[in-house]
Amino acid sequence: MSLAEPIAGTGTPIATGTPEVDAAPETQSVPWPHRHLLDVDGLSADEIDLVMRTTDAMREVLARPIAKVPALRGRNVTILFYEASTRTRVSFEVAAKNLSADVVNIAAATSSVTKGESLVDTVRTIEALGADMLVMRHPASGAPYLAAEIFGGSVLNGGDGWHAHPTQALLDLYTIRERLLPAPGAAPRTATASGQLLAGRKVVILGDLLHSRVARSNIWTLTAAGADLWLCGPSTLLRGFEAWASRGAAGRRFTVTSNIDAALRDADVVMALRIQRERMASGLLPSLREYAARYGLTRARLAAARPDALVMHPGPMNEGVEIAPDVAVGTNSVITEQVTNGVAVRMALLYLLAGVKS
Amino acid sequence: MSLAEPIAGTGTPIATGTPEVDAAPETQSVPWPHRHLLDVDGLSADEIDLVMRTTDAMREVLARPIAKVPALRGRNVTILFYEASTRTRVSFEVAAKNLSADVVNIAAATSSVTKGESLVDTVRTIEALGADMLVMRHPASGAPYLAAEIFGGSVLNGGDGWHAHPTQALLDLYTIRERLLPAPGAAPRTATASGQLLAGRKVVILGDLLHSRVARSNIWTLTAAGADLWLCGPSTLLRGFEAWASRGAAGRRFTVTSNIDAALRDADVVMALRIQRERMASGLLPSLREYAARYGLTRARLAAARPDALVMHPGPMNEGVEIAPDVAVGTNSVITEQVTNGVAVRMALLYLLAGVKS
Amino acid sequence: MSLAEPIAGTGTPIATGTPEVDAAPETQSVPWPHRHLLDVDGLSADEIDLVMRTTDAMREVLARPIAKVPALRGRNVTILFYEASTRTRVSFEVAAKNLSADVVNIAAATSSVTKGESLVDTVRTIEALGADMLVMRHPASGAPYLAAEIFGGSVLNGGDGWHAHPTQALLDLYTIRERLLPAPGAAPRTATASGQLLAGRKVVILGDLLHSRVARSNIWTLTAAGADLWLCGPSTLLRGFEAWASRGAAGRRFTVTSNIDAALRDADVVMALRIQRERMASGLLPSLREYAARYGLTRARLAAARPDALVMHPGPMNEGVEIAPDVAVGTNSVITEQVTNGVAVRMALLYLLAGVKS
Repeated sequence: MSLAEPIAGTGTPIATGTPEVDAAPETQSVPWPHRHLLDVDGLSADEIDLVMRTTDAMREVLARPIAKVPALRGRNVTILFYEASTRTRVSFEVAAKNLSADVVNIAAATSSVTKGESLVDTVRTIEALGADMLVMRHPASGAPYLAAEIFGGSVLNGGDGWHAHPTQALLDLYTIRERLLPAPGAAPRTATASGQLLAGRKVVILGDLLHSRVARSNIWTLTAAGADLWLCGPSTLLRGFEAWASRGAAGRRFTVTSNIDAALRDADVVMALRIQRERMASGLLPSLREYAARYGLTRARLAAARPDALVMHPGPMNEGVEIAPDVAVGTNSVITEQVTNGVAVRMALLYLLAGVKS
Repeated sequence: MSLAEPIAGTGTPIATGTPEVDAAPETQSVPWPHRHLLDVDGLSADEIDLVMRTTDAMREVLARPIAKVPALRGRNVTILFYEASTRTRVSFEVAAKNLSADVVNIAAATSSVTKGESLVDTVRTIEALGADMLVMRHPASGAPYLAAEIFGGSVLNGGDGWHAHPTQALLDLYTIRERLLPAPGAAPRTATASGQLLAGRKVVILGDLLHSRVARSNIWTLTAAGADLWLCGPSTLLRGFEAWASRGAAGRRFTVTSNIDAALRDADVVMALRIQRERMASGLLPSLREYAARYGLTRARLAAARPDALVMHPGPMNEGVEIAPDVAVGTNSVITEQVTNGVAVRMALLYLLAGVKS
Repeated sequence: MSLAEPIAGTGTPIATGTPEVDAAPETQSVPWPHRHLLDVDGLSADEIDLVMRTTDAMREVLARPIAKVPALRGRNVTILFYEASTRTRVSFEVAAKNLSADVVNIAAATSSVTKGESLVDTVRTIEALGADMLVMRHPASGAPYLAAEIFGGSVLNGGDGWHAHPTQALLDLYTIRERLLPAPGAAPRTATASGQLLAGRKVVILGDLLHSRVARSNIWTLTAAGADLWLCGPSTLLRGFEAWASRGAAGRRFTVTSNIDAALRDADVVMALRIQRERMASGLLPSLREYAARYGLTRARLAAARPDALVMHPGPMNEGVEIAPDVAVGTNSVITEQVTNGVAVRMALLYLLAGVKS
């Protein structure tokens, strides 16, 4: 979680070409320095750009009749999830199998975790069992950082508490980049000389910011890309973000508001967050019905955004609550693209991390 | 569930040979027109015959030292089960792996389904994650039809509510055909000129018809094959079938009775259905003991059938309730053959569906 | 569980070389006579030695950049676990995949087992589904013996009740052998002419012997290897072992004591067993705190053992109860080596059993 390494906003792009990903990652000429992916806050603009371009290459792999490359053959990817999940778990599993890795799934509910074994012991055991890469989701913020201190291979954070969900932020960035920016033929979709991939673009994150690891990771990548970022929701669910915004250094600014009309006006991207029903008990929200009435992303509200605004959602959706069903599948929606891009981004990350000598 | 397409009872067999299944299914010359397998009611006699002959080829694959063909290499088969299952889930998994597909298992109890995501969203997500084929079991009748409207690949119904279990009906038909009909060398085991594969054969389905998707799908395939079909059980568990039988067009007739002696007399095939203990609560059955006494398939009762009658059961069995233990493993039993044929039939169906351009 | 076959303590080693394991096991020249692995009590010293040397070969495979051999390609290994487990289940899964087998996982909690199907039917079904090898964990002692009577392939016991855990005992023996005995270059690590691999070595098993299948299997292999074996714990958890010890024939003797100081003095190996919290309810232990105070393996207590004594634990650990955290990760600990050796031993056993014609 080191904030020491600056987000290089002015770096020259490493390359404009697409990495070649059919071979084993050790043979890549492009350097990737990180052994783990714990959050996006330690990634430079150049490194984020490398993830984007490697994802381009993985999208090409996915478009092949047999969407498989032998890059990680014989590597063991263990997926350890302490929370229920479909899309993230399966996305990592498919990504790893597309790279020809062997995948082991461990759902904590049916594992020795229920016997009271500590996380440290579990991670040590998984490594001793032969895991080269560990994908992990845990309800406690910071748990993957603890795992990374012990594990000899690479740890990929698949979501920890309210803290971070780095692969989600990177797939969101990739989805925006692919849709809002000129195609490769026209001009390179890498960071421009100013380093501001999303300069002048208004991006709104709407809903339960307080409990959202998706939002926290997206704040880093979107502000690093130069977006005009707005966070919008009921004031009880924005707690702490005002203070964070006011601390922001150059290029790390964002606007916090409960005024949904102001937030959506001329937006280029609207990302609705899931309202978790279990939050109601905490008294932070009066009712789902009232939330839907005041902050639900309806077609009427979306009309205030730009006509070609992107509608995004990390899923799973509570349709009729944070997003209206017709908006979820409307022409502006890129929600299923996010899912497919998620597989490609995770392939890219597994590939890049596998090339790092530990 | 369209009843519009007639069951071609008089069609000439497409071919008498066994399809060659080592190559990718796209290269097959034999046409298979359906993108999904939702029920058996839309299959013509020729198509059912093609399934049977493709299954013959898959049985040959299973007999090899390495029971694997590369036909579906690089394809993703996702198995989404909303109900507990061993045999059907594993059968599809083994079938897909024997064809070299990548398999993803999703058990609804541990998935985002528990977060309230709609089935439509789940299916859309699974497709976006890269699934080419979706095998699905769901407690709601019709759920796979909804999935098929959304999913861009092929949906295979692994059982929906009380409605249908098409792969079970096809494996049951295959098992009967293999045992009752002359071997390929002697005469083609395809539909005869009359189209009546089981003409003159008495087949009894015994037990809890009311709640049985296995029975509903078998009624279609067995009557289409010309069997003299009898449904037998306590009258509370036959509700609705009398009316169905009386509506029956030519070739779709069957007999409904609570008289087990009449049903079993000279039967060629007796298929016992599972009595689910949880039905007791509904008041439809007085007790398991009484059910066993009146309708349990015992050796004494089986004596009324033909000496070489086949004893079948879709599993899992409640031995001592709907079937006596000695009958379940007796010389007439083909219950474990059903399980092995189930793998071969599912290989055949995955193979045929994979060849359809969507 | 036959005790008839003597443990050949005086046999000449079959060979001193390491078996070649890249090819299919049928081509091996070394004979392995057993179709199943249910316990260690039926293994001769020569057979145990063959397991050890085959494990050496598998360790070499694990050290390769791609830790995979094609030996079991196309074989189906089904893992049926009726109890929660991480390390044993994953260890078998990784072992089977390293040998290129296809693996099917069945967790009883989500299978038809919950529908009341008998174990016999489940095993018959798994065989009919195509399983060549069945790895099984069951809470009832003896369950794998029942399975072996039915299953046509090989059954590997992954732990049954309090009875046996043969792969754990073999990986423990391998770990001790690798650490305590001269390296292969210096002298063969096979059984010596006296057959006493661990002659003169003091090995202590510490803790809840009563409920431990790990201990029961280890008693066989360690006494067969000639170790000076001590069992130590509260008298309530040693019940029955005194009588067993007094029955012991030559080479089957061990010491039973509640005196931990006597047990640890000059020990070469100390194996701490897991204290299961759920045992407290039975009144066998006053409290975890008292257990830890009297029998926990602390650094102070370990000082009584030899300076280079090995500390072992089958996992998962309750750190601070049966073992102090600093001892668990201290320089004497070989606990993570046990886990890695477990994968290699299970590869060796799957490989050897697959070569037996059934």
